[in-house]
Parts: sequence; C-alpha cells; structure tokens
Amino acid sequence: MRLRNKPWAKPLIDSNPELIVTKPVEYRGKWETRFEKKAPLFIEIGMGKGGFIMELASRHPENNYIGIEIQTTVAAIVLRKQIEAKLPNLQLVCANGSGLSEYFEENEVNGIYLNFSDPWPKTRQEKRRLTYKSFLKQYQNVLNAKGSLEFKTDNRGLFEYSLVSLNNYGMIFNQIFLDLHKDEEAMIDNVMTEYEDKFSKKGQPIYKISASFKN
Amino acid sequence: MRLRNKPWAKPLIDSNPELIVTKPVEYRGKWETRFEKKAPLFIEIGMGKGGFIMELASRHPENNYIGIEIQTTVAAIVLRKQIEAKLPNLQLVCANGSGLSEYFEENEVNGIYLNFSDPWPKTRQEKRRLTYKSFLKQYQNVLNAKGSLEFKTDNRGLFEYSLVSLNNYGMIFNQIFLDLHKDEEAMIDNVMTEYEDKFSKKGQPIYKISASFKN
Repeated sequence: MRLRNKPWAKPLIDSNPELIVTKPVEYRGKWETRFEKKAPLFIEIGMGKGGFIMELASRHPENNYIGIEIQTTVAAIVLRKQIEAKLPNLQLVCANGSGLSEYFEENEVNGIYLNFSDPWPKTRQEKRRLTYKSFLKQYQNVLNAKGSLEFKTDNRGLFEYSLVSLNNYGMIFNQIFLDLHKDEEAMIDNVMTEYEDKFSKKGQPIYKISASFKN
Repeated sequence: MRLRNKPWAKPLIDSNPELIVTKPVEYRGKWETRFEKKAPLFIEIGMGKGGFIMELASRHPENNYIGIEIQTTVAAIVLRKQIEAKLPNLQLVCANGSGLSEYFEENEVNGIYLNFSDPWPKTRQEKRRLTYKSFLKQYQNVLNAKGSLEFKTDNRGLFEYSLVSLNNYGMIFNQIFLDLHKDEEAMIDNVMTEYEDKFSKKGQPIYKISASFKN
C-alpha cells in the first residue's frame, strides 16, 4: 500500500522507541532483548496496516513477532494501534525489507510472512518483487532449518512468477492453495489481512504457498 | 473420461494395426519406423477423444506424435477419426500409461503432454494421479535432456497437488499459468482439448505448467 506522508508520523515513531525500531541493525542477534519472553521469532515483511501481524501476535502469545514496513506513515499507523493494544510479543520495524540479513543473524528467524506484496508487474521491476531471488537469498540467510516462508496474494501474475522463482531457487514446496477461501480446513487457522478481506469478498481467489529452504 | 465398452471397438483396433499399437513394448527404441519421417517425438498420455493430439499433429508436420489411451473404446473413437484424417505423423497406442519406460527408450521422447487427467481426488488414490512421483520417474526415464512435461487441467485440487509433487521430485518449473485463457500470448499457440473448450466457456480457470527434469 502507498500513503501520502503525514507530518505526525515521524514524531510519533521517534517518541515510542520501546515499540518501534528504525535502526534494526543495532538489534542483530539480540532481538529477544526487545521482548518480555524468549520465544520463536516470526516476521512479516511489508506489514501494511498491521491487521495480520497484530492478530497473529494476539492469537499466539507463545511466539514473538516483528512487523517490518518501509513507509514511515504506514508504520506509524500500526504503531498507533500497538500503543493501544500493547501486545508484549510484537515489535515494529520501520526499515527496508531488502536489508534483512543485516537485521537478523543466521537462524534467528523461525518464519517469514509475505502478504499481498506489491506485484511490480513490469518486467523491468522484477528485482523489486519480494519473491525475486535476491530476497529469497536474504530469507535463506536468516531462517533456521525448520523455518518456512508463507506467501499470500490475490495477484495472479505475481503468484505465477513466485511459484517459478521459488522453485528455480531450489525451495521445497510444502503446501499450495489456489483458492484459499474455498478450503475449510486451511481457513480455521487463516489470519486475514485488510486486503484479503476486501478482495475475497469480491470473489477474487486468494493464492497461498508455504515453502522451505533445503538444508 | 470414462465410456462404456462398445462391441465394435476391439475389432476396429485389430483391423488397423498400421495406425494403432496395442503392444507398445515391441516398438521400444524403434518408434521412428512407424512414421513416414524421422522427427522429434511428442506423446500425450490419456488422449481422451484425441482432439488435442490430432490438432497438434496437424499444426506441426515437422514433429511425430503418439497418443496413448488405456481405454479401448476411447482409443477406438480416436482411431475412427484418424482413419479419416490419415495424419502421417500420428500414431495411436492403446495401453496403460504407467508402463512408459517399457514402451520408450531413454531419451526417445522430446515432450510429454498431460491434459485434464483424472484427478483421483481421494487421498488413497494419490498413486493413480499422473503427476505422482512414480509417473514422474517414468517421464524422466524417457524424456531427453531438452524435453519438457506440459500439464493442463481445470481441476484445482489436482493442480495444487501437482505443483507440490513436481517441485518435491526436483523438477524445474519453466512457466505457470493460473488462468491460461486470460493470457493472450499463451493462447496463440494453445491447442484446446474437448474438456478445455467446455470448462473454459463456463468461466472456469484453466491451469497449466511446463516443467523439465534436471540433467
């Protein structure tokens, strides 16, 4: 999602350093110091308005979560919600997702979520897609052996591209859904994003893949 | 597709041995003797009523084609058409697709087509699906280094299964379409099967993958 910059966003972020990090390199290998409890760490890259990561953190107090968002205003919108919700197992990061291996140590992460990422549909924009091989390399660097990547989108072109990209990179597919909302069993644990709710109501299929890296 | 056995089918097959083979093991490594010209060989497993393989053979006189069908009556229906059409680059086989490595020598085949294969949806039927690993092993045995598998279906469950199965077997994905008929470029060369025509008219998406084996 894209939003015009709001003047209140930056000051709000600056005044809540216990909830949101703007220099994530400083916490590389030490993220557990930012949480109440030591627990498996899951991250979402491009958290948008934060509906997904906040709901997930709320359902799973046994895990720690980090939501990463590059846009200041978007991150500040989630921060505003987190100031209210005070989820002890959620930290926010306002930074570029492409620096992932600088933010996390090898094996520091148990799972990565990508939800409704920007499709960057033009061929010359391929390198910006979050399932392009240079991003996969970063995910591989930080995920531990049991870790997996979970990716959901309503964008057919991006999903077609991503299936080929993940396969060609050598990732192992665990499960694929080509119309997630028609699968009753999968929907029990499904946490919806704001986009997902909107697009599935229009009858648009939601695509999902869960995949891992070879050890 | 399933059809009741017709009494005329077997006699028609027996009286046209130059067009249809019932003991394909006899031609292992010598399929080119059945064609007018030596040419790259492509096969379809489960050709149904034969619309796909006959159209393909007619469009591409530079290649040789073999349509394989396990059901006698279904194979005989295609034979009836081929008696009329007399396509010199098409041979029919009435036999079980699971014996593929007994019918073809290593590297004898340039491409394999699977179209709208039986989904065998129950878990206990997994081994019958034409994208189950034991079938993939057969395809790998007979395909040459440049050869690829092309698979189309309207069945979501079978396509989800197949993406995971092909990936886990170690196949390399070349291209994927999650709604083939919406892709204008891909449709230029697309040869429709009888099923495809029917289901796409209902607005059902047609899924397609092209994939290869590692060398």
